[in-house]
Amino acid sequence: MRNIKLTVAYDGTSYHGFQEQRGTGLPTVQGVLEKCLSELAQRKVQVIGAGRTDAGVHARGQVINFDAGGWNIPTEKIPLAANGILPHDIAALNSREAPGDFHARFSATAKEYRYTIHNCRVPDPFLRRYSLFFPRQLDIGDMRRAAAYLIGEHDFSAFKAAGTPVKSAVRRLYDIRIEPGEIIQLFFRGNGFLYNMVRILVGTLLEVGLKKYPPQTVLEILSSGDRTGAGLTAPPQGLSLMKVWYDNPA
Amino acid sequence: MRNIKLTVAYDGTSYHGFQEQRGTGLPTVQGVLEKCLSELAQRKVQVIGAGRTDAGVHARGQVINFDAGGWNIPTEKIPLAANGILPHDIAALNSREAPGDFHARFSATAKEYRYTIHNCRVPDPFLRRYSLFFPRQLDIGDMRRAAAYLIGEHDFSAFKAAGTPVKSAVRRLYDIRIEPGEIIQLFFRGNGFLYNMVRILVGTLLEVGLKKYPPQTVLEILSSGDRTGAGLTAPPQGLSLMKVWYDNPA
Repeated sequence: MRNIKLTVAYDGTSYHGFQEQRGTGLPTVQGVLEKCLSELAQRKVQVIGAGRTDAGVHARGQVINFDAGGWNIPTEKIPLAANGILPHDIAALNSREAPGDFHARFSATAKEYRYTIHNCRVPDPFLRRYSLFFPRQLDIGDMRRAAAYLIGEHDFSAFKAAGTPVKSAVRRLYDIRIEPGEIIQLFFRGNGFLYNMVRILVGTLLEVGLKKYPPQTVLEILSSGDRTGAGLTAPPQGLSLMKVWYDNPA
Repeated sequence: MRNIKLTVAYDGTSYHGFQEQRGTGLPTVQGVLEKCLSELAQRKVQVIGAGRTDAGVHARGQVINFDAGGWNIPTEKIPLAANGILPHDIAALNSREAPGDFHARFSATAKEYRYTIHNCRVPDPFLRRYSLFFPRQLDIGDMRRAAAYLIGEHDFSAFKAAGTPVKSAVRRLYDIRIEPGEIIQLFFRGNGFLYNMVRILVGTLLEVGLKKYPPQTVLEILSSGDRTGAGLTAPPQGLSLMKVWYDNPA
């Protein structure tokens, strides 16, 4: 086995998420990567991804791993070869050989997601695929105060899509950083994220920013464990998986 | 007549150019604008555009004009109303009332186009719709020297698409500015542009940048008037109409 760790970026607009949905025929990022890598390796290649991004969600630093055993190509040439046949909305950025037990998803110690909000009265056609257009005034100070309550280890049951069973909803958020401007960027770094968690966190922070409730209310939402108390799920096109860590992320 | 000057931006990826092609059923920016404005005005609205951008070419500062006579809406509210029903890849930026004889195309004194080249070994899925991916080394100094020969008033017959009849191919280029980097941006400002002229100029400057011929060869190409001497037509997705002037552009 030659275990390759490959960093990839993709525009998720045209895909039904990262994860292959066998038998559905829906286009997925994993499906396209497996098809292209299998074509290059001339045998069936299975891909493991660090983050199972949803339909329409993007990635600038998704990490995958796969077995390139028997494929006669130097590790560092894999991105160039892959980019030669990948569609234009998926790119291989860099590759290196990882230990045999490296698993893109289970070995990850932290991930960072970015959510982009175009906070301007006038829409921009070049941002619409990559941001939420939100032309209302937001109180960034209140959003930051609410975000501060969310940092740390919590049961995030109130911030996961209803009806998605998990063994434990406890996750640790290391940091939430909010960069203001006409383009507001929210960065979420944590040891793991529940289904739709970032998008529900964003929806909730938007409600705080609109002053629908004060920052400390997110503490009540958090402790209630009740999804219906949190904000709407922000739309997918604003979200991007930026980076995956495999060492101490602190 | 109430003559409205409206600045619009669009992602041209999904359109067969700006200009409506009656009877073809192909989607055009003009067609969509006319449909939306007619819907708002509740009568047929005809749109005149400053630049007839090609299929796949974008605009950040296209200017149109149309008659809003009888349409009961304050001029400054038109962008908001239009953006409410325009598709996400077209946006109305700002509007003002112009003199009755204002014509978006014939009144224009200058236009600026930008061509974007992603000059990097690794492709970026988020730039592919808006740039030419060109992972080869370019001599920016030579490209700038060649560009300097093109500034001024010339017969640009060698830099127009073959088989496009015009009364005169004489145009004045006020400026060509090349900003280097991983993202190279070429800005062309002139009093008018022939069909495909910017894209052929870019194709030619790329050949100079690759050192296929020295900068001064563009003078020979220019004076030959022969399209076959110039470079290939650079693809449309790198091109964007940035600004239109209606006063002294010097």
